[in-house]
Amino acid sequence: MRDVVLGIDIGGTFTKFGIVDKNGNCLKENFTSTDKYTDFDVYLEHLHTEIEELINSAGSDIKIKGIGVGAPNGNYYKGTIEHAPNLNWKGIVPFVEKFKEYFPGMPIVLTNDANAAAIGEMIYGGAKGMKNFIVITLGTGLGSGIVVNGDIVYGHDGFAGELGHFNVRQKGRECGCGKFGCLETYASATGIKRTVFKLLADKADKSELRSISFNDMTSKIIWEAAKKGDQIAIEAFEITGEILGTKLADAVACTSPEAIFIFGGLAKAGNLIFNPTLKAMEENLFPIYKGKVKLLPSQLQETNAAVLGASALAWKELEK
Amino acid sequence: MRDVVLGIDIGGTFTKFGIVDKNGNCLKENFTSTDKYTDFDVYLEHLHTEIEELINSAGSDIKIKGIGVGAPNGNYYKGTIEHAPNLNWKGIVPFVEKFKEYFPGMPIVLTNDANAAAIGEMIYGGAKGMKNFIVITLGTGLGSGIVVNGDIVYGHDGFAGELGHFNVRQKGRECGCGKFGCLETYASATGIKRTVFKLLADKADKSELRSISFNDMTSKIIWEAAKKGDQIAIEAFEITGEILGTKLADAVACTSPEAIFIFGGLAKAGNLIFNPTLKAMEENLFPIYKGKVKLLPSQLQETNAAVLGASALAWKELEK
Repeated sequence: MRDVVLGIDIGGTFTKFGIVDKNGNCLKENFTSTDKYTDFDVYLEHLHTEIEELINSAGSDIKIKGIGVGAPNGNYYKGTIEHAPNLNWKGIVPFVEKFKEYFPGMPIVLTNDANAAAIGEMIYGGAKGMKNFIVITLGTGLGSGIVVNGDIVYGHDGFAGELGHFNVRQKGRECGCGKFGCLETYASATGIKRTVFKLLADKADKSELRSISFNDMTSKIIWEAAKKGDQIAIEAFEITGEILGTKLADAVACTSPEAIFIFGGLAKAGNLIFNPTLKAMEENLFPIYKGKVKLLPSQLQETNAAVLGASALAWKELEK
Repeated sequence: MRDVVLGIDIGGTFTKFGIVDKNGNCLKENFTSTDKYTDFDVYLEHLHTEIEELINSAGSDIKIKGIGVGAPNGNYYKGTIEHAPNLNWKGIVPFVEKFKEYFPGMPIVLTNDANAAAIGEMIYGGAKGMKNFIVITLGTGLGSGIVVNGDIVYGHDGFAGELGHFNVRQKGRECGCGKFGCLETYASATGIKRTVFKLLADKADKSELRSISFNDMTSKIIWEAAKKGDQIAIEAFEITGEILGTKLADAVACTSPEAIFIFGGLAKAGNLIFNPTLKAMEENLFPIYKGKVKLLPSQLQETNAAVLGASALAWKELEK
């Protein structure tokens, strides 16, 4: 009998789930739609059916020890998903309570996706053995998971670690959260796209990016252009890194981590994003921290990182 | 026999020390000079002599169980004071190691003064029973102690919690740390004084503060003027609170505390500083935190808060 856990990652479009052993091997994995289901109970019933099929397909020599769930605005303490802007289910959704009806007696634990990524980094990735580190996920927005003394910081209400909503500037860019000037409106896949459009407006440089609409623009297109020497694209990476690095210095002043891991599509741009980020971080660090904080790419495979993170959450909970 | 600890607070000018019981009663207290001693070993020998006198004067029915020390740039992990700008002893001073020679076998623990204040708040003050909170000390600079899951956040290197060096603006005011635009250059006794002088330059309002030199100006004078309706003074408090509150919102995004306590001279100005700070914090909070975070004055008596904080550190260590 092989002990395994179930990792579930709930995204705005898809829900991914997999069976993962303690070494981070994903034995079986599948996905289903999230946004097709406007009714949460119908979604959950469908998800359960799909998961049962996955478990059956994995054979009879596994034993599911627990379930970890990563979800936007997931609350670790309450097992709820609360007011998630990108999900159909409004208000407070009691995910764990309802899911337990399908898995009586099974430990089920839930947190937000960036916290799950941080636990994944700690258990399977580059943060093995580290007690104090931060994971930044650069996707549509900017998520973060903060680890202090070997544990995720959940805070008083279970929602700690929202560095994407650090204030970059007063009356800055409009954010999906309702505020203005949040870090994720500058440093994220969407943020760099907005920066490109500002540069296209402000500057006269020729750029292949001038032929692409806002809706069609992606961070990957910007990256490809930068690699070919496009000045607008290169400057967009520099500005993104400068703003991100400055705010990472503030995060360091809070919890003084050993390392900051960058995860997600933008991190693939390598030096284009890491160099300006590290430079700005170092310049803005309180002197006592200078030269001490490693800035590293995530060591999790992006293809199944979300499921790995959720499963790592389950393993971490079982250790307690 | 009554169990007590020794609390020592090392400031730039004076070193205060006292004998404190578990309920926070300061049985005996005294102080000596810090800045008179350019040689650390001479200082330590003198401090030891003074402390022995204090202990002898306290009678024979006490038993010293441990020593807690608060010091600028104090490192909890290493027991060192490192590169403290306001102390005569440069470089890295191995305080605990050397002090143990005078008190063989005695548990001695050291951290920075703001962390000591936070532990004091937790053991004797308004944070009793709280697991997640932040203490901000507004003095010459801005210090902070961050508590997560009931423990001070020391971070990887022992120096976590330097919110005074959050970046408020690029190329902002020159800070004693060598950076520009640090929070403490705006939000502190010195910060509000600098803001007054900027307002005196920018505005034409009559103000009694126009007759006072920079060197003679204090936050107390500004407070007195504000109470009498001086518009420059009132606006200085508003600006200070606005900047402080905005950055406290960032701190909340990190660790999601239940409460933030404000300690120190400026906190005595009450609503003058609390109202604009709370307003700016709420406006800049990520929606999920809004209305959840209490902003409170410290409940520690300022007269011996530093010694109480240092002693609380000792009690907390003895519990471990």
